[in-house]
Amino acid sequence: MSGSTFGNQFKITTWGESHGAAVGVVIDGCPAGLSLSEEDVQKFLNRRRPGTSKYATPRQESDLVEICSGTFEGRTTGTPISMIVRNESQRSKDYSEIASYYRPGHADYTFDAKYGFRDYRGGGRSSGRETIGRVAAGAVASKILAELSVHVFAYTCSIGPIGIDTEHFDLQERDRNVLCMPDAAAFIKASEYLDECMKAGNSSGGMIECRIHGMPAGIGDPVFEKLDANLAKAIMSIGAVKSFEIGSGCQAAAMTGLEHNDAFVMQDQKITKKTNHAGGILGGISDGDEILFKCAIKPTPSVSSLQHTVNQKGENIEISIKGRHDPVIVPRAVVVVESMAAVTLVDMLFSNMSTRMDAVRDFYKR
Amino acid sequence: MSGSTFGNQFKITTWGESHGAAVGVVIDGCPAGLSLSEEDVQKFLNRRRPGTSKYATPRQESDLVEICSGTFEGRTTGTPISMIVRNESQRSKDYSEIASYYRPGHADYTFDAKYGFRDYRGGGRSSGRETIGRVAAGAVASKILAELSVHVFAYTCSIGPIGIDTEHFDLQERDRNVLCMPDAAAFIKASEYLDECMKAGNSSGGMIECRIHGMPAGIGDPVFEKLDANLAKAIMSIGAVKSFEIGSGCQAAAMTGLEHNDAFVMQDQKITKKTNHAGGILGGISDGDEILFKCAIKPTPSVSSLQHTVNQKGENIEISIKGRHDPVIVPRAVVVVESMAAVTLVDMLFSNMSTRMDAVRDFYKR
Amino acid sequence: MSGSTFGNQFKITTWGESHGAAVGVVIDGCPAGLSLSEEDVQKFLNRRRPGTSKYATPRQESDLVEICSGTFEGRTTGTPISMIVRNESQRSKDYSEIASYYRPGHADYTFDAKYGFRDYRGGGRSSGRETIGRVAAGAVASKILAELSVHVFAYTCSIGPIGIDTEHFDLQERDRNVLCMPDAAAFIKASEYLDECMKAGNSSGGMIECRIHGMPAGIGDPVFEKLDANLAKAIMSIGAVKSFEIGSGCQAAAMTGLEHNDAFVMQDQKITKKTNHAGGILGGISDGDEILFKCAIKPTPSVSSLQHTVNQKGENIEISIKGRHDPVIVPRAVVVVESMAAVTLVDMLFSNMSTRMDAVRDFYKR
Amino acid sequence: MSGSTFGNQFKITTWGESHGAAVGVVIDGCPAGLSLSEEDVQKFLNRRRPGTSKYATPRQESDLVEICSGTFEGRTTGTPISMIVRNESQRSKDYSEIASYYRPGHADYTFDAKYGFRDYRGGGRSSGRETIGRVAAGAVASKILAELSVHVFAYTCSIGPIGIDTEHFDLQERDRNVLCMPDAAAFIKASEYLDECMKAGNSSGGMIECRIHGMPAGIGDPVFEKLDANLAKAIMSIGAVKSFEIGSGCQAAAMTGLEHNDAFVMQDQKITKKTNHAGGILGGISDGDEILFKCAIKPTPSVSSLQHTVNQKGENIEISIKGRHDPVIVPRAVVVVESMAAVTLVDMLFSNMSTRMDAVRDFYKR
Repeated sequence: MSGSTFGNQFKITTWGESHGAAVGVVIDGCPAGLSLSEEDVQKFLNRRRPGTSKYATPRQESDLVEICSGTFEGRTTGTPISMIVRNESQRSKDYSEIASYYRPGHADYTFDAKYGFRDYRGGGRSSGRETIGRVAAGAVASKILAELSVHVFAYTCSIGPIGIDTEHFDLQERDRNVLCMPDAAAFIKASEYLDECMKAGNSSGGMIECRIHGMPAGIGDPVFEKLDANLAKAIMSIGAVKSFEIGSGCQAAAMTGLEHNDAFVMQDQKITKKTNHAGGILGGISDGDEILFKCAIKPTPSVSSLQHTVNQKGENIEISIKGRHDPVIVPRAVVVVESMAAVTLVDMLFSNMSTRMDAVRDFYKR
Repeated sequence: MSGSTFGNQFKITTWGESHGAAVGVVIDGCPAGLSLSEEDVQKFLNRRRPGTSKYATPRQESDLVEICSGTFEGRTTGTPISMIVRNESQRSKDYSEIASYYRPGHADYTFDAKYGFRDYRGGGRSSGRETIGRVAAGAVASKILAELSVHVFAYTCSIGPIGIDTEHFDLQERDRNVLCMPDAAAFIKASEYLDECMKAGNSSGGMIECRIHGMPAGIGDPVFEKLDANLAKAIMSIGAVKSFEIGSGCQAAAMTGLEHNDAFVMQDQKITKKTNHAGGILGGISDGDEILFKCAIKPTPSVSSLQHTVNQKGENIEISIKGRHDPVIVPRAVVVVESMAAVTLVDMLFSNMSTRMDAVRDFYKR
Repeated sequence: MSGSTFGNQFKITTWGESHGAAVGVVIDGCPAGLSLSEEDVQKFLNRRRPGTSKYATPRQESDLVEICSGTFEGRTTGTPISMIVRNESQRSKDYSEIASYYRPGHADYTFDAKYGFRDYRGGGRSSGRETIGRVAAGAVASKILAELSVHVFAYTCSIGPIGIDTEHFDLQERDRNVLCMPDAAAFIKASEYLDECMKAGNSSGGMIECRIHGMPAGIGDPVFEKLDANLAKAIMSIGAVKSFEIGSGCQAAAMTGLEHNDAFVMQDQKITKKTNHAGGILGGISDGDEILFKCAIKPTPSVSSLQHTVNQKGENIEISIKGRHDPVIVPRAVVVVESMAAVTLVDMLFSNMSTRMDAVRDFYKR
Repeated sequence: MSGSTFGNQFKITTWGESHGAAVGVVIDGCPAGLSLSEEDVQKFLNRRRPGTSKYATPRQESDLVEICSGTFEGRTTGTPISMIVRNESQRSKDYSEIASYYRPGHADYTFDAKYGFRDYRGGGRSSGRETIGRVAAGAVASKILAELSVHVFAYTCSIGPIGIDTEHFDLQERDRNVLCMPDAAAFIKASEYLDECMKAGNSSGGMIECRIHGMPAGIGDPVFEKLDANLAKAIMSIGAVKSFEIGSGCQAAAMTGLEHNDAFVMQDQKITKKTNHAGGILGGISDGDEILFKCAIKPTPSVSSLQHTVNQKGENIEISIKGRHDPVIVPRAVVVVESMAAVTLVDMLFSNMSTRMDAVRDFYKR
């Protein structure tokens, strides 16, 4: 089965395992003439790099990207952009123990069930390192969106039971604290909570929210290629994501039509909505309003406390997972969420260009 | 943009508007030799047919399906299966009023923004009638799954604030009441709640849960084609769905690793899990356990109470939507959820067949 | 396997067997706002209709098309266009004989090998009637191309050993004679040749040439999605086609670089080529010149003369195929070639729109 | 536009320019458990490597491949296989001259027309070096086919006017001579012809034939995904290929049905054909016979003799192309043809696995 390619007109293909030689991505369908440098991509990769806080694995990896094709004299050529990041921190430790059993909450068992065997060194293809390719592609997609005045930004909205207070929302603060929380007070509480988790050899989950500004109205398709359906697949395809909500999300279930309907209203000669339960998407198509979605991230399954599981011999055993693990992966996942959203938006903006006959005619009459 | 096709190896293409001549679906990639009759499909369609309860639109449509190709002497031939349902109840009423403004919560505005104009008779392509094609395909997919001992069943787990009590869960009851609730007591409360909504010219949302039994372990892909990511897209592509949750879903965000991890344990020589927060999927791949997901359905946007909106002239107006509308669409959406899940599972089961070299070798050495 | 969909941005899905209830096509990705009527489509279908000449099967089928979705008030809405043609002439004759053996040159044997059994009534899915869906889609694609001043026309350039004389090329003549030959003298010779074939209970092959005018330069992709590679797949996917040649085609093999290279030269301030061995495509991308390709059509395999074959019991037998068959299918295939070329061009024109960053920026800044 | 990915179940994505840092390919959908080493791939790459004969460019490139992912302990893991070849011989010569005009027979002009500018160093993405990725993928595909007892082999059947004599066909001879001709006498004549071409500052075209043994009957699809249609696209997507012929190819046009039909006949209890004008494919589906196709390769457009062309200023000029060019690319293209054929066959074999319900049932009942 081939499942490492995402997108149609703007297509990304990621490759690589956590303990192989390298990881990378090929972007196919990037327009010619976009200014692009390795620095543009490195900035994004640095946001997910490990070893930057006590709440992230202490593994040290510089994660330097090399652009191997698709650019010439600082601009994209329209041909595939291949980007590679070498894997550095591959401890030569003995993996035979971890190879012998199935870690709870990990894909060890399902990989054996699917492929018959697995690269048992670390998470293999299911490792968080797979997201390097997504983020490198997200950096390119975000540059394209910037040219179209579309901006994507995500942040941590909760860690375990600690959520941000929308009244104190401050996006600058997100970049000041290591948990990517746009609320200084919530950050302090969340830090204390995580310290306790770590003391207890435990880990925490959390929630990420993403907002998209500047998306023109009319993007997305009414049936299977709904903009929110594609965002849902993009986000749910990130490891550890357990839910996707657009606009009012789960809360819509308990609401009435009169509560949930967003009344249209004229504002400065433009059609707007009084509220945004729709999350900026109606019938799968963007309505020009802010696009807003949320996702839940499960707690890191690798914890040092004692756990029960089964080994390949089929024996019940007790384990305690050693090694360098994030007590919470939410902060490092924020840029991954932004990246997958950006890739999805670019793909749908490109696919949308042949929607109207008059626009196609104008395009080719130029 | 082309967005009416779903799936790769088992591919469905739906077509049709609410007030056109007909709606339908073409299934491409159905294996040869499956026994299939129009009755098999009609059974599924009848579950979504309107006019069957006071909580559904009183519109009367028989929604009789015709299989136009792809079967011979009661079996599928392996060629495309084209199924058509004629639209009957097309009131020749004057649509000029509804054509002139944008209904809150509907896709009227986004259609105009995307296409420049729209078929203003009813919901057009965004109407619930579009799901007829999905359900007809779901009937075929479910027959394929049955041959593989895989069974999909969904039900209403809440209407507005009224949820089912898992202690009283009774699947037979689901088929006895018009709200598809597997809990007789909850059904009575929900009915009373809906009666009030209707009196108030209002509508209600709700939640649907879906369970899949018999799915073998090892189906799905570790990266973009995760089984849960594809289910998320399939379900979010159904009109009015606002969220998708796999297993623990949103609750995972507030949990710790020790709470969330499902311990593996041997049971009758087989590897099982003590709990199922994973929802039957680990790393995007099925683990052999029950697959469990939930989705939120927004309240019907068409309500008879007074609403504020904007007309095409760009004037703020007040409207009250007449016509035959469902006070709640959750019960009729249950079979649509089952259908999209079934189509997704079949596609992934087929795509999975070339995952192992030894299995491919055995297949062609037969 | 799912193999009845062609194209990416402009996607067609055909369905139907020769002796089922109907045949049809769903077009997904047609822009909104194209004026389209059933007459537009019927005109194309009439060009492939049987029973119009003594060189085509005498079967009488009106092949009337119904557009079931995707248009409103005479224009396309941007949603799928579903078109259906009912099968009329289904003789209730006994097919048991033809069901029992494998006709040479037909797909009877390969269908059984692939699917395990087959709809033995006529050619089933391999029948020429499958092309009705292609031609209906071609009619729509041709209307789109006309809006972009692109014109596709094909014609018979040889029947058996009789070829047209390019010196007497006359496109009007193509539409005056039943063999679609743009050369009156060649038509007469070819008719005599076919008369002999028919007397001998035999059939003839032939060659079709296709020219495309007005294609802008820059369409197509440098690697797998070369414009000529996609045209090759489109044309070779038509039953009975045995070869595809672009520009100089097979002759290129015997030429030298100095003979084959087309010198660029300025003409009225525009870059043109002195010759066109390239056939209007360089490196997979259109060069603005006339696009020219050829394809060979094999002789109709159904002949009334005695043939040797094998039956399902595995016995060597002698057969003589009765029934209503075309002594040559070339003339009826001309419009199918035009249609597949048109569908391919539209798809590539649409896919090309996001090739340049500045063009994408201008498009969304409108 | 994204056009660097080929295949569905077995999907390859190539990337890289002739003068960038590297070229490569990502294979997605290779089954787990296939034994694979860099040597396996290098053997294929060495067959297309330059500098190996006086009839190929003297450029020296070792073209050493690195497998960066998708294998573990000598076997494929089922995850993407990323393979990279660094570009070595990038002469730091001044490209400003070649940058200023359009070389006849090259894609310089169409690249500018499509992308607005181009990487003018060598052929960029249209260079023959792009085929390195195809050949690396072909090596993997061929190993898969070998496991299924399917074998693909191609050879030069003509150079300019010199063709092989089928009576003297000797496959061993193909590997003994630098022109890959399976006929020693033809090789000598062809060498003399090429020597003249080179003396005259000219180049030659030629023809490649490909045969496939061991393909089971029943592979391919009756409509758009015909096995021969996919082979046609795969082969026509190779730069410089001008035609594709299956079986009788162009000759079918001049034949009668009685000449062209391949009579079925029983041989050792198996159904075979007396002749093979079909080329092993009937109705788009393999018939179990040898698959045979041909393609024409145009003469190398880069010749040192004086040519007329146009520069970017729009002036008519005369040029003489310097540098290291192949007088004929046919011999080096042989392995590229084999590779694209192998990739296509694997993809179709995998896609075919869900064709029959009973086979799917057996597969999952294992």
